[in-house]
Amino acid sequence: MRTKLRYGQVGGTLSAFIGGVHRKAIAINEQAELVAGCFSSSNPGSNMECGAHYGIEDSRIYPDYRTMAEKESVREDKIDFVVICTPNRFHYDVAKAFIEKGIHVVCEKPLCFKVEEAEHLCRLAEENNILFCVTYTYTGYNMVKQARELIGNGLIGEVVDVKAEYLQDWLMDEVNNAGSSEKKLSVWRMNPDFSGISNCVGDIGSHIEETVSYMTGSKVKRLVAMLDKFGHELDLNANMLVEFDNGAHGTFSCSQIAAGHYNGLAIRIFGTEGAVEWEQEHPDFLRVTLKGQPTQIYTRAAHTSGHALEMNRIPSGHPEGLTMAFANIYRTFADALLNRINGKDTDGKWDLDFPNAEDGLRGVKFINACVESSDKGSVWVEL
Amino acid sequence: MRTKLRYGQVGGTLSAFIGGVHRKAIAINEQAELVAGCFSSSNPGSNMECGAHYGIEDSRIYPDYRTMAEKESVREDKIDFVVICTPNRFHYDVAKAFIEKGIHVVCEKPLCFKVEEAEHLCRLAEENNILFCVTYTYTGYNMVKQARELIGNGLIGEVVDVKAEYLQDWLMDEVNNAGSSEKKLSVWRMNPDFSGISNCVGDIGSHIEETVSYMTGSKVKRLVAMLDKFGHELDLNANMLVEFDNGAHGTFSCSQIAAGHYNGLAIRIFGTEGAVEWEQEHPDFLRVTLKGQPTQIYTRAAHTSGHALEMNRIPSGHPEGLTMAFANIYRTFADALLNRINGKDTDGKWDLDFPNAEDGLRGVKFINACVESSDKGSVWVEL
Amino acid sequence: MRTKLRYGQVGGTLSAFIGGVHRKAIAINEQAELVAGCFSSSNPGSNMECGAHYGIEDSRIYPDYRTMAEKESVREDKIDFVVICTPNRFHYDVAKAFIEKGIHVVCEKPLCFKVEEAEHLCRLAEENNILFCVTYTYTGYNMVKQARELIGNGLIGEVVDVKAEYLQDWLMDEVNNAGSSEKKLSVWRMNPDFSGISNCVGDIGSHIEETVSYMTGSKVKRLVAMLDKFGHELDLNANMLVEFDNGAHGTFSCSQIAAGHYNGLAIRIFGTEGAVEWEQEHPDFLRVTLKGQPTQIYTRAAHTSGHALEMNRIPSGHPEGLTMAFANIYRTFADALLNRINGKDTDGKWDLDFPNAEDGLRGVKFINACVESSDKGSVWVEL
Amino acid sequence: MRTKLRYGQVGGTLSAFIGGVHRKAIAINEQAELVAGCFSSSNPGSNMECGAHYGIEDSRIYPDYRTMAEKESVREDKIDFVVICTPNRFHYDVAKAFIEKGIHVVCEKPLCFKVEEAEHLCRLAEENNILFCVTYTYTGYNMVKQARELIGNGLIGEVVDVKAEYLQDWLMDEVNNAGSSEKKLSVWRMNPDFSGISNCVGDIGSHIEETVSYMTGSKVKRLVAMLDKFGHELDLNANMLVEFDNGAHGTFSCSQIAAGHYNGLAIRIFGTEGAVEWEQEHPDFLRVTLKGQPTQIYTRAAHTSGHALEMNRIPSGHPEGLTMAFANIYRTFADALLNRINGKDTDGKWDLDFPNAEDGLRGVKFINACVESSDKGSVWVEL
Repeated sequence: MRTKLRYGQVGGTLSAFIGGVHRKAIAINEQAELVAGCFSSSNPGSNMECGAHYGIEDSRIYPDYRTMAEKESVREDKIDFVVICTPNRFHYDVAKAFIEKGIHVVCEKPLCFKVEEAEHLCRLAEENNILFCVTYTYTGYNMVKQARELIGNGLIGEVVDVKAEYLQDWLMDEVNNAGSSEKKLSVWRMNPDFSGISNCVGDIGSHIEETVSYMTGSKVKRLVAMLDKFGHELDLNANMLVEFDNGAHGTFSCSQIAAGHYNGLAIRIFGTEGAVEWEQEHPDFLRVTLKGQPTQIYTRAAHTSGHALEMNRIPSGHPEGLTMAFANIYRTFADALLNRINGKDTDGKWDLDFPNAEDGLRGVKFINACVESSDKGSVWVEL
Repeated sequence: MRTKLRYGQVGGTLSAFIGGVHRKAIAINEQAELVAGCFSSSNPGSNMECGAHYGIEDSRIYPDYRTMAEKESVREDKIDFVVICTPNRFHYDVAKAFIEKGIHVVCEKPLCFKVEEAEHLCRLAEENNILFCVTYTYTGYNMVKQARELIGNGLIGEVVDVKAEYLQDWLMDEVNNAGSSEKKLSVWRMNPDFSGISNCVGDIGSHIEETVSYMTGSKVKRLVAMLDKFGHELDLNANMLVEFDNGAHGTFSCSQIAAGHYNGLAIRIFGTEGAVEWEQEHPDFLRVTLKGQPTQIYTRAAHTSGHALEMNRIPSGHPEGLTMAFANIYRTFADALLNRINGKDTDGKWDLDFPNAEDGLRGVKFINACVESSDKGSVWVEL
Repeated sequence: MRTKLRYGQVGGTLSAFIGGVHRKAIAINEQAELVAGCFSSSNPGSNMECGAHYGIEDSRIYPDYRTMAEKESVREDKIDFVVICTPNRFHYDVAKAFIEKGIHVVCEKPLCFKVEEAEHLCRLAEENNILFCVTYTYTGYNMVKQARELIGNGLIGEVVDVKAEYLQDWLMDEVNNAGSSEKKLSVWRMNPDFSGISNCVGDIGSHIEETVSYMTGSKVKRLVAMLDKFGHELDLNANMLVEFDNGAHGTFSCSQIAAGHYNGLAIRIFGTEGAVEWEQEHPDFLRVTLKGQPTQIYTRAAHTSGHALEMNRIPSGHPEGLTMAFANIYRTFADALLNRINGKDTDGKWDLDFPNAEDGLRGVKFINACVESSDKGSVWVEL
Repeated sequence: MRTKLRYGQVGGTLSAFIGGVHRKAIAINEQAELVAGCFSSSNPGSNMECGAHYGIEDSRIYPDYRTMAEKESVREDKIDFVVICTPNRFHYDVAKAFIEKGIHVVCEKPLCFKVEEAEHLCRLAEENNILFCVTYTYTGYNMVKQARELIGNGLIGEVVDVKAEYLQDWLMDEVNNAGSSEKKLSVWRMNPDFSGISNCVGDIGSHIEETVSYMTGSKVKRLVAMLDKFGHELDLNANMLVEFDNGAHGTFSCSQIAAGHYNGLAIRIFGTEGAVEWEQEHPDFLRVTLKGQPTQIYTRAAHTSGHALEMNRIPSGHPEGLTMAFANIYRTFADALLNRINGKDTDGKWDLDFPNAEDGLRGVKFINACVESSDKGSVWVEL
């Protein structure tokens, strides 16, 4: 029986922020070891240096992802899964290559740019019996799982309204910067070549969509969106009215120019019998209100059940933080993969409780619908 | 030189909530005395009892508002202004009657039901040189004035986004109550005869519109609204996308079914250089963030300037509360009226800094636009 | 049957802060009318002007409190009670004069300077069957009453620990100002002639003692105190260990030099089965935690019972503020006085639920014990 | 030049909470590899299983710590440092053994039980030129470092008052459990054999002392303490008055029976020019108030400088959590150790900015002083 997994990474050189978070999250779980990688195909020196730093054998540091997929797939001790942290525009090609070689995939969000590509990846993954995880970070938080648990159990009745937002302020300087020749670090996200058709909605709006859907089990059916570009090619701020498949209504807002908000994902779910509210900047707490009763402050570990309970790592009151949310996603994914490798059945409960390719597809549709609505004068668009 | 005013009240029997708040607010200021009234025209006994309770001479307790306007207007010691706290549907007729007799008016919001009526009152007030105050409570809060002061001074640059909401939960039971024969206390607000075309937007959505406009100086230009009725005739919940005359965008949400929120008016104004955020349930504080700097918690009295500074009554840290906000509106109105009576010029600064008939008209337009948008399938409607 | 009371005021000229709060609080209740006063005995002009401003007949504006007590006591329409807002050092003499003439008393805190004086007032009030109220403001807050209700009902078991503090920052400049010739507004509180043996403990520490005692029903039995004077004659900052008569322990802290705190009275009561926590700067909320359960946020009006329920004036979510807390004390006092005048029995529940002379006496003892402890090198002192 | 360290662990089997936190914290830094250990000397099976699980060669899984110290010290590839996570009563012996073999030490707190032992370890470490780290977790938090930076730079003037507390509620059941025959999980902490002379002060009170000292640079000079045992042998709750070597005063409180508090370490430092306030349950924020100015909310990463800036790992708004605080301590220690091994000089700034044996000694003295004070009737005790 296997107890440890082997994995490889595509993208994520030493200086890349998110690649490091993936590795640390995996390291925390002590369930998988990094044994192969292609960290940069454009810069062979950086690629080798990076691989060496992580203690990878030279022979498993690959010049490009295709070679990596091919060579790994035929090894006895091949990698069990690949982590894709490349710029977003490469996600599709890289994921496809590994799926086709039968290697399981963990891919950064957004899954890809085009709906057709996303649909193709979903189909391919299913046909090849591939476990495919899209790392929508916030679904890994303990109290987001607890919200899902409570809402799923009917505690707040039927969901009738959702207010969700994701506010940052790190691009405030860009509001008055359109057409500027001065190119800043921030530029890659605002460049369609790297970010596709949307910056703000693509980067953070998509987290709103997925986290709300994860919490409630409902999907956005249609929306009207207003994207603000302030003279740039891509959006920096957006507001939407949304309608869910269960009939609930609500607002989504995302912004990178909202002074005083750093990573302010805040989700409030209102039902016929109560409400559940969560803020990412204080992730270990959940506000739960039942009709006519005082609001209750649920605290991680002390007031958790189901998968949220299982995912507790340290006692309540000891903040777990974002890297632990990431680690929770990886732990769920790794457990599922180990079960599969070891021939164990799914437990039918939480063993597939991580965001998958279908979630990734829905995210791509959401981004596209927002841009289409806004471009057409903020009209209703069906997903 | 006059230092005290005389006033009369129409509506507001002993058991009425808002009538009492008006009287207490005026009493706190020690600037005006209640000397006449018509508290109920349908119940003469209650009318007399109420008048007697407030120490009004029998001869100035009137059977109906027309008689009151007529008789008062010819007295030597006539009332200087009338406070109108009747059910909303009578506002127009009562206000008209007093304006035409040259008596100044303080009217509860909403000003009236129809745009034409509101326009008529504006015109009449101007023609008759009447001071007309519409008591949008929240503009009276010290820290709302401070927000207006800071934004007006350009502290946060140009306003680009507004997120405002007003959440209550007292009608949650109505969500599953449509068609019920059981008639509850809550019913009058949900009855078009009393509330006009809207319950939730009319009652609390209109406060969002006015308070945001007061803070920013910008007006809503167009909007798309989704009103939720849950089988009733009138709305209990609503979400809107809004565009302001200065080009800013944003969302408004109001609800009477949002568990865990009691009187949750919360307004966040985002500008190119910073943000200002305020919550009515903690009214003595203001969050102010300048680009790149830590958020600052402004506290009433300690960190106020302009009209907000002038309006401080007790030291910082001593909560002033809603009745004081009301009192602030009355104090501003009474100062202006005393100035006028005493032949003093306006100081050109804050002496007219109370919500007036134009604000009332804009509120009526806003309510109408929301209902129209929602009825037409949530399309854009210009104000 | 009497429904309205007549009262007089000693002290509290137009510019005095606390005198105005008393009058506004009484005005809000609409239960009593100001008909007599001696607002300043040192400045006859100010005295007359002040009385005229409040609409008092000339004949009832008295040159000194003794004359007032004497003359009022023999009138048919004499005042039912007197409100004493003089500088603290006069409280004893003034209160004594009115008690002896059979006039009921509402007195600002601290009751007086010396324990013997306080004991004398208690005895006199009892002998003369006088209702004597000491306006410890914070006991009037709705949610303080709710805390008392919950704790009294045993919800949190036996109280075992109390952490209470009252932090202000308005005297920060005095820390480095000892011996300065520059005399500031703040000086009177720091002058023993006006404040007695303590500034900070006397002014705000005494509120801690009373509010905790009111909430819990327990009294401080002994304490050790450290008072910080920073070179001045009186204290600006103090910390204490306390032991209660039920065996509970805890800490009290008060300060006028704690940056960022304006009127931060915060009280946390820990029992064997749960905890109750309250903060004056957000007075409409109460944190209640039962062992093993999530913390609950009780909100005024929505989650009140007993006397706290009765004292609600406006709906939950509409902040009531400090003046309303004052008004609650006056309403309770006035109800009790009207009951007595009208020959009604006490209801045995809340009709005497206002701070009285015994509370005032205990406060004086507390202040004396703190100073004694600190002066002797911070040793234990029994109360 | 060495870039990676080798380490061994004593104590910390698979099921032990804190041992796992140490390993994860080290893994996050990617600076050191676990290559040796003695996880349990009493259970050889568990010891071998644990070692195998971590991928340690059989030959470096030792039956006892003495053998480990001896054998490792003579290897070419010997461990650079040992992590001691045994029950507290073994800390002294284990640390001594490794110091004497020239192996650097990271030891859990409290350092040991007796002052003489702690002094001996300090002396030994100095004589043997050993880097000795005591893992007072909370000094690793970014915003605790920022507080130290600001206070050290004089931002808030001279520190005059400290209010610090550490409240938990996990032992509430024990209050009524004295003498009970039912033995619970909690018992080991309440057993003098395992915890020494104090449970609550030893476990969490010592964190208050160290974190305050770290933030302010001041040390407790004398104190008076009241420890509450509720019939048990050791304390569950404690309150203290403290005086610091710079003359500042304050209160410390720690509790394991404070309902609604999970890991509530909260520290407030008041100076002559301002205040700094921090709460462990929301560790990425710091309240900073300068005299006369609004309180500012410093946020991790966005508003950091000095060592705090250097220690940022992920962008502001992304919570780092407790494990990252641990990782920060290890990173500082590992950097210092690598510098020493590589012959680099200290940078004189932050390279020794981790809690060391002297801090451990001071902690032991603090615990002893608290117990002595309380046992003698809560009298003043010098440290």
